[in-house]
Amino acid sequence: MAKEKKLVEAITSMEADFAQWYTDVVKKAELIDYSSVKGCMIIKPAGYAIWENIQKELDARFKETGVENVYMPLFIPESLLQVEKDHVEGFAPEVAWVTHGGLNPLQERLCVRPTSETLFCDFYKNLIQSYRDLPKNYNQWCSVVRWEKETRPFLRSREFLWQEGHTAHATAEEAEERTVLMLNVYADFCQQVLAMPVIRGRKTEKEKFAGAEATYTIEALMHDGKALQSGTSHNFGDGFAKAFGIQYTDKDNTLKYVHQTSWGMTTRLIGAIIMVHGDDSGLVLPPRIAPTQVMVIPIMQHKEGVLEKAGKVKERLSKVCRAKLDDSDKSPGWKFSEQEMRGIPVRVELGPKDIEKNQCVLVRRDTREKTVVSLDEIDTAVPKLLEQIQNDMFERAKAHRDAHIWDAHNYDEFKEIAESKPGFIRGMWCEDQACEDKIKEETGATSRCMPFHDQEQIAGTCVCCGKPARKLVYWGKAY
Amino acid sequence: MAKEKKLVEAITSMEADFAQWYTDVVKKAELIDYSSVKGCMIIKPAGYAIWENIQKELDARFKETGVENVYMPLFIPESLLQVEKDHVEGFAPEVAWVTHGGLNPLQERLCVRPTSETLFCDFYKNLIQSYRDLPKNYNQWCSVVRWEKETRPFLRSREFLWQEGHTAHATAEEAEERTVLMLNVYADFCQQVLAMPVIRGRKTEKEKFAGAEATYTIEALMHDGKALQSGTSHNFGDGFAKAFGIQYTDKDNTLKYVHQTSWGMTTRLIGAIIMVHGDDSGLVLPPRIAPTQVMVIPIMQHKEGVLEKAGKVKERLSKVCRAKLDDSDKSPGWKFSEQEMRGIPVRVELGPKDIEKNQCVLVRRDTREKTVVSLDEIDTAVPKLLEQIQNDMFERAKAHRDAHIWDAHNYDEFKEIAESKPGFIRGMWCEDQACEDKIKEETGATSRCMPFHDQEQIAGTCVCCGKPARKLVYWGKAY
Repeated sequence: MAKEKKLVEAITSMEADFAQWYTDVVKKAELIDYSSVKGCMIIKPAGYAIWENIQKELDARFKETGVENVYMPLFIPESLLQVEKDHVEGFAPEVAWVTHGGLNPLQERLCVRPTSETLFCDFYKNLIQSYRDLPKNYNQWCSVVRWEKETRPFLRSREFLWQEGHTAHATAEEAEERTVLMLNVYADFCQQVLAMPVIRGRKTEKEKFAGAEATYTIEALMHDGKALQSGTSHNFGDGFAKAFGIQYTDKDNTLKYVHQTSWGMTTRLIGAIIMVHGDDSGLVLPPRIAPTQVMVIPIMQHKEGVLEKAGKVKERLSKVCRAKLDDSDKSPGWKFSEQEMRGIPVRVELGPKDIEKNQCVLVRRDTREKTVVSLDEIDTAVPKLLEQIQNDMFERAKAHRDAHIWDAHNYDEFKEIAESKPGFIRGMWCEDQACEDKIKEETGATSRCMPFHDQEQIAGTCVCCGKPARKLVYWGKAY
Repeated sequence: MAKEKKLVEAITSMEADFAQWYTDVVKKAELIDYSSVKGCMIIKPAGYAIWENIQKELDARFKETGVENVYMPLFIPESLLQVEKDHVEGFAPEVAWVTHGGLNPLQERLCVRPTSETLFCDFYKNLIQSYRDLPKNYNQWCSVVRWEKETRPFLRSREFLWQEGHTAHATAEEAEERTVLMLNVYADFCQQVLAMPVIRGRKTEKEKFAGAEATYTIEALMHDGKALQSGTSHNFGDGFAKAFGIQYTDKDNTLKYVHQTSWGMTTRLIGAIIMVHGDDSGLVLPPRIAPTQVMVIPIMQHKEGVLEKAGKVKERLSKVCRAKLDDSDKSPGWKFSEQEMRGIPVRVELGPKDIEKNQCVLVRRDTREKTVVSLDEIDTAVPKLLEQIQNDMFERAKAHRDAHIWDAHNYDEFKEIAESKPGFIRGMWCEDQACEDKIKEETGATSRCMPFHDQEQIAGTCVCCGKPARKLVYWGKAY
């Protein structure tokens, strides 16, 4: 048992040091490795397989709403980045610049895309001529670069993977509809697939995307009570269209500007999965996103017939879920620890005595609960258990989230909560940015969103300045 | 009919100007658009959907051989690129350099990856410690950048999409086995999915990859008789391992260097599909790679019941293939031209008279052959026709390729063929690079490969210098 112990002990406990626990899980579950390029990570097979599942699920949902995929250049000429004023101010300080191609200096610097609004606008300008060309619902899967000073695996890195949707519409209403639609696609995906409850709402002016008219967001709560912005959807109105001259001839033969949106989700979601569901034994993956859902682990595999039977169980399970067999020469205890560290939702234990009784033991990763099941029933029992785990994980995450939402009615209450109670703070806001700035400076909490669905009036005055206020805001310390 | 004519006439014929025909197809079939970044293209939905199918097919074949996907950083520090001498010489002249991050100059320049051997070596150096860690069969899907002077859509651009596999093995034999295995995966994919015959062989020393011990290639013949290198697989031996210090402890407790391979395929394949199968009406897609396999086109769709019936036909076909319905308000002739331009393998024509007779007309894109089929039989007739088209396209491409392979026994013959007969030239070679250089300079033909499967001795002397020669080489002008 010495070896197994070592593996588990190697993780810092969440209680002791959440940040260190996170780093330990990311490394020990073999999700990433550090590279010799500062701030850029290597996504290893176990991490990339999660991203592949995220892509597959999201991409299918996008396509159901009429989205088509394209690929735009990696580079943006400096002059193109500068066309929209707010946008360039937001991004120019954090981009990487290419100045030489081969042995020669470039005539114009190119930035490595931090996001591709400007490229899509440049493309749409020529592509869209008539109302018949609308809408355009394009998306791309790619990597982007932002020259961050402080980096953390998945949460903030100089290069990350994402998708960015960019749409163009005939009317403001259609653009708004698409903005909300995609936010809902994101929210449903997080809740149904990642078992992660989210709050949908609108960002304040201060927190919105550079160049957007409105930014909508989904905010999730991590296990340590910090918020994570998990997906955003922006309505640009006709701001970019005017800056870039994207006009179309309408049915009435007049020239009109298009209305645009963009929306994105990133590898950051893998960080969210870790911090919402993980525990002191490592990663805990929701079954729907887990690359391997079930690990079959033979007990006393040297005994005649055990490995063979385990192989057959794995084959049968492979028809109803993503199953693997661990037939390596490690001890069963070591294999259990590895399966737990990697967050595989269910393990099937199968030894000579089980085989004699025509049964196996199913062990849930999330609760460690064990059930003995007849081998005749595994084809139905395992998928049912996976569904149960998925639902339970969502309910547990939701209960944890809901138990960490606090109402503050005045600034003293706010400060006290911010200091002592991790989680979201609900507080009214006068809509003056000065109060947002003050709260951030004095408590470290930022405005996460103005929620869509529960705009309750929990007080009549701003939680910061005490002036009349009508907007409920979720505040929180955030990643 | 005026409009339809315009659409078709807009393409230059292959005979008149093959290069212009290619550019016309690429644009008119809406595969790409030019971007404001010189040498970089925008891959539009119709083009990207082909790439998605290529990815899906290849990725599944890779995974069947035990390959796992990862993601490596976009950037390579200059010092890392320089570790392997031949490699840096091959790539340094054509890379893009990042010199600034945000507002500050970088301490060390970073190149945008032209290929990732050096990053994988740096990664493997730490990852691989013991024989238990081998083999590593990793692959990534990403974009790479090479600062080309002359660019053409898909065939040569400053940024392109690809996959790059990088493996590490305990022995030289295993590395060689993997190199050949992946070349065969590529060849089978080209032949079975893209309906494109290829010649498998080895590159000469002059043409091999920078840093490789051996490069294997598949070479295809385009309709104009020029060759296209369509996929390569490299055996590095232990050259990179020695340069980077990638060692493992073997079972006998001694330190050994690993043996490595890499292999890649790119968006260039889309150019190959165009140039192998296309005709004067546009693109012709092999059914297995076509994003849309069947377009249902109603005739006299304003007549009662026609659109409804066409919709039902489309629904039924969607269960057995990738089918779409063109219910736009364009004329049928216009829709035919569009379907042909886009290379959709089959169209289903359905008018009031067909409906009366409970039938429809199937029209093949490749031969334009029409068949009248009972509506009761479309679920079986259409998939069967798609298979037939796939096979016929391969056979036609193969017949064309085989009719354009010429044997040259001496240099006069070689020069005459190179001047007058497009295609591959088979000729013996003395293995002296001087002859390769001379042939290239004087005829424009390069050594494409030394074939694996038909090392016939068509002569005893070098086709260039007349000295004794034992290697058969396929020569050709190439993209």
